[in-house]
Amino acid sequence: MANHEANRISGSLLYYLPECPSENGHFMKSLTEHLVLNLPDRMAFLNITPRVDEIVRKSGVQEGLVLVNAMHITASVFINDDEPGLHEDYRKWLEGLAPFDPSPTRYAHNRTGEDNADAHMKRQIMGREVVVAITKGKLDFGPWEQIFYGEFDGRRPKRVLVKVIGE
Amino acid sequence: MANHEANRISGSLLYYLPECPSENGHFMKSLTEHLVLNLPDRMAFLNITPRVDEIVRKSGVQEGLVLVNAMHITASVFINDDEPGLHEDYRKWLEGLAPFDPSPTRYAHNRTGEDNADAHMKRQIMGREVVVAITKGKLDFGPWEQIFYGEFDGRRPKRVLVKVIGE
Amino acid sequence: MANHEANRISGSLLYYLPECPSENGHFMKSLTEHLVLNLPDRMAFLNITPRVDEIVRKSGVQEGLVLVNAMHITASVFINDDEPGLHEDYRKWLEGLAPFDPSPTRYAHNRTGEDNADAHMKRQIMGREVVVAITKGKLDFGPWEQIFYGEFDGRRPKRVLVKVIGE
Repeated sequence: MANHEANRISGSLLYYLPECPSENGHFMKSLTEHLVLNLPDRMAFLNITPRVDEIVRKSGVQEGLVLVNAMHITASVFINDDEPGLHEDYRKWLEGLAPFDPSPTRYAHNRTGEDNADAHMKRQIMGREVVVAITKGKLDFGPWEQIFYGEFDGRRPKRVLVKVIGE
Repeated sequence: MANHEANRISGSLLYYLPECPSENGHFMKSLTEHLVLNLPDRMAFLNITPRVDEIVRKSGVQEGLVLVNAMHITASVFINDDEPGLHEDYRKWLEGLAPFDPSPTRYAHNRTGEDNADAHMKRQIMGREVVVAITKGKLDFGPWEQIFYGEFDGRRPKRVLVKVIGE
Repeated sequence: MANHEANRISGSLLYYLPECPSENGHFMKSLTEHLVLNLPDRMAFLNITPRVDEIVRKSGVQEGLVLVNAMHITASVFINDDEPGLHEDYRKWLEGLAPFDPSPTRYAHNRTGEDNADAHMKRQIMGREVVVAITKGKLDFGPWEQIFYGEFDGRRPKRVLVKVIGE
């Protein structure tokens, strides 16, 4: 606890961990890659952390941010646990919140000939993108954080953008 | 497919598209603008992509990020489809998840004299902000991605922040 | 209104506020800190704006972005109102959307010995992270924006990452 600064805010303890050395006076670098994914199911989750990790290392960025986003509007990128039971729960929960229904009765969007209005809603719950810190050349993650591609209207190729900026 | 690297991860095909040239050793630039919007309805969605696009071009940033966020806590900025049927579906769906009810019985927040507790919830579903990659001077978007301002307590002026950083 | 540019888009008025001076040709800086929080309740919200504000000032960044994210997957960082009634509403609303239930009957995740599947869902609704603009050395906030740590499986220490990048 020697190098922690302790504060009491609203009845909770708040510490500072020792900070990373501030790196000043560097030039900016960037790297952009687009992943293509084709999941065999309508709704599915895929752990893309190893791919993002590889791109971050390749960029040479030591201190910066990486943006990872779905480029399609019926898909998500989110961070959560790599646990199959949880993914089963997510599928059931999202189906309850925004049920698949190809008819134009429930969803006006499906009057256009589409059948995926539900997928546009599921994607809003799970989010389009994550922004992750890069510290000392690595994804600055908590113990269980993993990056997932979330597919809600699969069985066709879709893209994910990975953009690294930093120094 | 010549310049694609194919990998098999969890039963799905994952390719790399050819990467953008890494641009090293540049200085950082930034540009900040605040849009003011005044939508005539309580709940409505407005496509602000042309405005963001214009600010990105004006910034001169070639490789970077643009942050677009609502500055009000009963509004959202999100990316989805510019399709009126889908927007109708969103309105109905959000009303089901967090119904408007000005009485202080359902929502404690409305004991303060406010009537917009539902809007604070709708905004959490749809999100506060998007971060979009800028590649070769342009918004690096998938085929259908459009940036929307989402209003859940309208009929008064509200602001959206657009911040470009990059090289 | 003299320095506003007025446009009509989709029936709504859209103005530009006077823009911040573009700052070109600067080096990039960064600062990373990790906060540790230990909230006494299972579900609770804590205003961490003063801490983030302090880190932004310490970084010396004048124009840039700050990323604030939960490093745990049963917690959120989000921006909304510092109003106790609203927080009560959020707790009730999230409990309705994803009820706590330690049994493995409702949630497959709880077959692993965990009891917190509901917390993984609540966190997806409220979000993992916020990205906030720094303009002229300060958090570029609307009138009511405050940054909250959202805890959905508390009573143990958890970390929040704050990363500043800019010039």
